[in-house]
Amino acid sequence: MRRLAMVVLAAGMVVLGILAQRPPAVAEPVASPQVLPDRRVTFRLLAPKASEVAVSGEFMSGSKPLQKDEKGLWSVTAGPLPPDIYAYQYMVDGLKIIDPNNPVVKTGSRPSTTASLLEVPGDGAAFYDTRPVAHGTVQVRWYASKALDSQRRVHIYTPPNYDKETSRYPVLYLFHGANADDTAWTSLGRANRIVDNLLADGKLRPLVVVMPFGYAYAPNDSGGVGLPNSDRQASGFSRDLIEDLIPFVQASYRVYTDRDHRAIVGLSMGGGQALRIGLGHLDLFSRVAGFSAAVPRSNVAEAFKEVAENPKKVNDQLKLLWVGCGTADSLFAADQAFSEFLKTSGVKHTFRATEGAHTWQVWRRYLYEVAPQLFSQS
Amino acid sequence: MRRLAMVVLAAGMVVLGILAQRPPAVAEPVASPQVLPDRRVTFRLLAPKASEVAVSGEFMSGSKPLQKDEKGLWSVTAGPLPPDIYAYQYMVDGLKIIDPNNPVVKTGSRPSTTASLLEVPGDGAAFYDTRPVAHGTVQVRWYASKALDSQRRVHIYTPPNYDKETSRYPVLYLFHGANADDTAWTSLGRANRIVDNLLADGKLRPLVVVMPFGYAYAPNDSGGVGLPNSDRQASGFSRDLIEDLIPFVQASYRVYTDRDHRAIVGLSMGGGQALRIGLGHLDLFSRVAGFSAAVPRSNVAEAFKEVAENPKKVNDQLKLLWVGCGTADSLFAADQAFSEFLKTSGVKHTFRATEGAHTWQVWRRYLYEVAPQLFSQS
Repeated sequence: MRRLAMVVLAAGMVVLGILAQRPPAVAEPVASPQVLPDRRVTFRLLAPKASEVAVSGEFMSGSKPLQKDEKGLWSVTAGPLPPDIYAYQYMVDGLKIIDPNNPVVKTGSRPSTTASLLEVPGDGAAFYDTRPVAHGTVQVRWYASKALDSQRRVHIYTPPNYDKETSRYPVLYLFHGANADDTAWTSLGRANRIVDNLLADGKLRPLVVVMPFGYAYAPNDSGGVGLPNSDRQASGFSRDLIEDLIPFVQASYRVYTDRDHRAIVGLSMGGGQALRIGLGHLDLFSRVAGFSAAVPRSNVAEAFKEVAENPKKVNDQLKLLWVGCGTADSLFAADQAFSEFLKTSGVKHTFRATEGAHTWQVWRRYLYEVAPQLFSQS
Repeated sequence: MRRLAMVVLAAGMVVLGILAQRPPAVAEPVASPQVLPDRRVTFRLLAPKASEVAVSGEFMSGSKPLQKDEKGLWSVTAGPLPPDIYAYQYMVDGLKIIDPNNPVVKTGSRPSTTASLLEVPGDGAAFYDTRPVAHGTVQVRWYASKALDSQRRVHIYTPPNYDKETSRYPVLYLFHGANADDTAWTSLGRANRIVDNLLADGKLRPLVVVMPFGYAYAPNDSGGVGLPNSDRQASGFSRDLIEDLIPFVQASYRVYTDRDHRAIVGLSMGGGQALRIGLGHLDLFSRVAGFSAAVPRSNVAEAFKEVAENPKKVNDQLKLLWVGCGTADSLFAADQAFSEFLKTSGVKHTFRATEGAHTWQVWRRYLYEVAPQLFSQS
């Protein structure tokens, strides 16, 4: 009885302690980012010793200063913002940091990629949301690359019920941009959710999506910094794709192995890779698309010589050649010039000039638009 | 000719510009962390306006101040460090940040988890390294949870050649700790590489590893903060596991469905879950292990009443009951007390008191040690 009383007393003291001891202001968790009901967003940072704090993000150009209160809590409210997913960072006395109160972090193969992610929900489910539909599987695989003499990681999406069926599937090879890695198209691009939703809505023929790592060297290998456009990088990535990855995919998955069931698409650096490898290997690919593609600004005709020399072959063999870029993208002029080059050369293609800059807000929508055009429902 | 001359001139100016314009010191990329040949590690941060910078990490207790040079570049060298993977953070004038020059980031479902990761290589391949052996697949799956009325994500490892074989596999349900998510056991724990390597070395029977999300609410749902030990959390997670996840795994994978081929293991919060759910459902699990498990400190006998009441049943039914904790872990006393409770109750088990604190350096080794004990080579 005495023991029970002690336990009750102890429990009571704990409860009293919780009620009485409000932690000091600095220890309270800071809500950031906070999406308000009208889709304005408040950014906060507790930094009593800082003298200048600003936020920059994909939802605006430039940056916005935060204001400091008497407790050293900085804050600012932006928006209302259109429903979407945005990367943002803080600048604290010249030091660029992520939001320490936000667990959702954008990562990549270079530190410049690291940012916090803000998701502004809309009234209903977005085309990239996890809806209560059948979900495909994202597989993380490793394969031995003879071309690069290394073990390489690749992300592969298989459609719902892949394991329960016996049919073969067409394949989309989908490339990320500079400084990112093979996680990007699912973690930031939500490619798996976009394809799930298109399939659920009957807008897409089931397909396998292969998302490789876009550099010839190992992720986080500092020896590779600055090499994305070098010959070693370009030829290494292309050789790995053709000599190692495609054979690995065809040996490991129930996919068609002819060019008519193989598409190649990429964004930014990966857009340049998709256009160059795709147009350079019409024997392998029948659908080619570049999203905000990094194409040469000056020597386009040289880089795509085979295309200019034999436009009829390209027109005969390609079922889709799609180029899109946001008009606020610094690559817009180059992509427009590339489209002009194709036009001048007599190569049939689609050129989409859309709203937007060099961000995932654009590329998620491009995938949603282009994926249904890749393979007909046969 | 004039045009060509202009082009050559322009190109020459660019080259001259590159040679002449050395960027100012602040724009140079900062090498951090830099692992030196003797395994000492230099941490750097460019923060000219900061007045105090320190680094803290899993390789030491407390923190270490960085020293500032005339350009505002802070640095300090630690170690030599034993080969391993360590989380670390900077404290800049009271603000905790990750290393902005390091792209490798530890993330989770709570902001407190975010840290930079440092990998110190040893002379040969570590037990968690990607060796040139056959690799299993990590699958990211979504399933509909009736118990929680939501779409839930789970990471599932299938062994090499899973797709090419027809045999069934035993299953390990493997839980992460507080503030983490279902990516943790592969991204931080390297569970897939550890199992790959054990399989390649013939030390393990091939198995499927299921790594669920350990909270009953959605990742990043702020409504869930502080609830990990609440009844709603405990019963919600357990119901989702038993009523939804196990049936999903058994419907989707070629696995055995009897208790003799089902193990349950977890770390920290997940260690508490594994011990409580495992020992509370001997009809479902035959192997149970807790790594640095969060078990109740006071009312153990109450929380594990069935165990104390029927030790013979536990001894008869369990093929393995394993509890391990680092002696520098704040949970060590609780885990030791739990082992004492088991001993007093007459329950056979292994209690491993090892070096180490509450970190992944310990848990990777525990998985490497425990996995081979789970299922015999039949």
